[in-house]
Amino acid sequence: MVHINSNFQKLPGSYLFSEVARRVSVYAGAHPNSNIIRLGIGDVTRPLPDAVTAAMHQAVDEMGTAEGFHGYGPEQGYDFLRTAIALHDYQERGITIDPSEIFVSDGAKSDCGNIGDIFGPENIVAVCDPVYSVYLDTNVMAGRAGDYDPRTGKWSRIIYMPCTAENDFTPAIPREKADLIYLCFPSNPTGAAATAEQLREWVDYANANGAVILYDSAYEAFITTPGIPHSIFEIEGARTCAIEFRSFSKTAGFTGTRCAYTVIPKELERDGASLNALWNRRQCTKFNGVPYVVQRGAEAVYTPEGRRQVEANLAYYRGNAQVIREGLLAAGLTVSGGVDSPYIWAKTPGGLGSWKFFDLLLDQARVVTTPGAGFGPSGEGYIRLTAFGERGATREAVQRIRSVL
Amino acid sequence: MVHINSNFQKLPGSYLFSEVARRVSVYAGAHPNSNIIRLGIGDVTRPLPDAVTAAMHQAVDEMGTAEGFHGYGPEQGYDFLRTAIALHDYQERGITIDPSEIFVSDGAKSDCGNIGDIFGPENIVAVCDPVYSVYLDTNVMAGRAGDYDPRTGKWSRIIYMPCTAENDFTPAIPREKADLIYLCFPSNPTGAAATAEQLREWVDYANANGAVILYDSAYEAFITTPGIPHSIFEIEGARTCAIEFRSFSKTAGFTGTRCAYTVIPKELERDGASLNALWNRRQCTKFNGVPYVVQRGAEAVYTPEGRRQVEANLAYYRGNAQVIREGLLAAGLTVSGGVDSPYIWAKTPGGLGSWKFFDLLLDQARVVTTPGAGFGPSGEGYIRLTAFGERGATREAVQRIRSVL
Repeated sequence: MVHINSNFQKLPGSYLFSEVARRVSVYAGAHPNSNIIRLGIGDVTRPLPDAVTAAMHQAVDEMGTAEGFHGYGPEQGYDFLRTAIALHDYQERGITIDPSEIFVSDGAKSDCGNIGDIFGPENIVAVCDPVYSVYLDTNVMAGRAGDYDPRTGKWSRIIYMPCTAENDFTPAIPREKADLIYLCFPSNPTGAAATAEQLREWVDYANANGAVILYDSAYEAFITTPGIPHSIFEIEGARTCAIEFRSFSKTAGFTGTRCAYTVIPKELERDGASLNALWNRRQCTKFNGVPYVVQRGAEAVYTPEGRRQVEANLAYYRGNAQVIREGLLAAGLTVSGGVDSPYIWAKTPGGLGSWKFFDLLLDQARVVTTPGAGFGPSGEGYIRLTAFGERGATREAVQRIRSVL
Repeated sequence: MVHINSNFQKLPGSYLFSEVARRVSVYAGAHPNSNIIRLGIGDVTRPLPDAVTAAMHQAVDEMGTAEGFHGYGPEQGYDFLRTAIALHDYQERGITIDPSEIFVSDGAKSDCGNIGDIFGPENIVAVCDPVYSVYLDTNVMAGRAGDYDPRTGKWSRIIYMPCTAENDFTPAIPREKADLIYLCFPSNPTGAAATAEQLREWVDYANANGAVILYDSAYEAFITTPGIPHSIFEIEGARTCAIEFRSFSKTAGFTGTRCAYTVIPKELERDGASLNALWNRRQCTKFNGVPYVVQRGAEAVYTPEGRRQVEANLAYYRGNAQVIREGLLAAGLTVSGGVDSPYIWAKTPGGLGSWKFFDLLLDQARVVTTPGAGFGPSGEGYIRLTAFGERGATREAVQRIRSVL
């Protein structure tokens, strides 16, 4: 008799974005033609850069000829892309990363989830609170989370690191011993960025304790403040304690095109084993690489035209972030994020609950946000807005919120 | 202190195709300009059909405009593709499958590996011997395989089902109780096809014992013999005991384009849980869907032109299979497969070991094959050849083998 993975049954039923979608759908049903503006989900809206579509067209043409056809590619990604990533995202910025330390994949979400395969079930996981739910849910599935307490909203074996206004939304080193530490900066959902000094503390802690930092820098391209690290590998000592996840999703608009990468330095070892070699074995056994056409598209992101076009898209989204941030501040809300990040993290007025404020904005401003409580207990009392919308709609949404408050 | 997943350290070091590549590279180094012909790895060589590249071009154009841009798609695949699959691969063939039972993915290898996430570690796994190594290796990683015995080439907790000339390369129901049963028909590596009667025995066994059949039908398009099932769901009762994996890789030439799908009927439950719902949760948490451009390409496989073009490619490969099969038979070898399959399974002459015969063919015929022993103990004494090459090279390879023998 087959038994299922019983950890799946521990996952709470309702998922944040499904519940958001349900409430929006109920409202839209009751108020047809109400022109709802969605600043909830973090999905991009700008088209793929011309340099990317040109490269993809050319690759599709190649695939249609016997000479240019590409069958199975390397599971780790083509050398042309790994080399471009190593050069432009690391070496040109003075960071030592070799192409063989880069694993091209179909998404940072896949990698953040699948990375658990190479670690034992006994490891103690630490996450920020609030947090991107994938870090938690994948560890629940793998049996590392223990049991869920619906009263506290916490899992028994997880270390929660509160990110609150008191600590500027950057967590302190926990008192308990953590093994696998998920950090995401600039943060989803709070939009907070971490300084080199703050990251150094984490790297030192991880090296002293044999911990591994799982560093999600999917939003590094939004950093505008000088001196804020774009990569954990800017910090000395990170090569022996960190894995970095990056994505083309939010920079080049690849959310529907799917390309990302994970960096594992050769020096990173635990139990005498190379984590680079373990991940390589995992990927070769359970993955078959990213489509050739997509990898050619990602490569084009690093051409001079590609970089210019990506930069234009980023500037557009940064402009939206500024519109939201300044509009909400002018409306009297307490706001963080939105400077080095596409996410704006706003305190609800008058101590209102996240979901109550969400409902109020949906009902009175016809604007969809994301309730902070959905990201963890310390997210209660906040909402998240995203800068990935269309400019006009973003302005309109902020206007409506201001007139409601 | 982080601990790794210790199961990874149980995996034997050398991987079949790496060792093949190593020996070929050594030979090629010693014999430059020797015109080696590769019939070893099962990768396609024909270009993508015109209908597919036309659809991909159109989708790339859409992605380059604000109106046509697609961001995050459904993790399960777009409705347009799930509906086309359900209609053409199932409903038109009289098989009841709903689009909601289809999960589009980046590959059958990914799915065959990742499906283990939804099952508990205690399940007993049964595999054919010889077998596609991914079924085994992913279960080793998940801790279901026990320990490896290098003398027998077997894992202590795995049930091996020998597929030999005596049973026409289709396994008998094992005497031990099996929970998760991997079946692949037409088989990789033996090329054997299973009849409806044989599959019915498995379905009845699985339903009687609460087992789940993981049915890999990646090669169903190569079936030519009337009456041979293309899907496990042609068998009555399969909806309560089977999961099916399919791929566009070998039919439409998608090995470098990456699209596949997994079918989980709504009736399939274990421990009171729907496996469809569990897999949906797994995919939503650890996967972000297949590129829009690729899904549009896959959809085009089902257009009238797409079907004609795919059929032409299949006919080409089937012709190669016939060339190999008949050539080896004429050379006096005992041969199976190659009729309903792109794989030809040939017995080594004079009781020669797999690797010895592999070396002989490499050295004297300059033809790369795959040693059967690499697929499991019962593969010893065989080699596998694939029909995915270029016609002229395939003919030449067979000529060379004949003149050597």
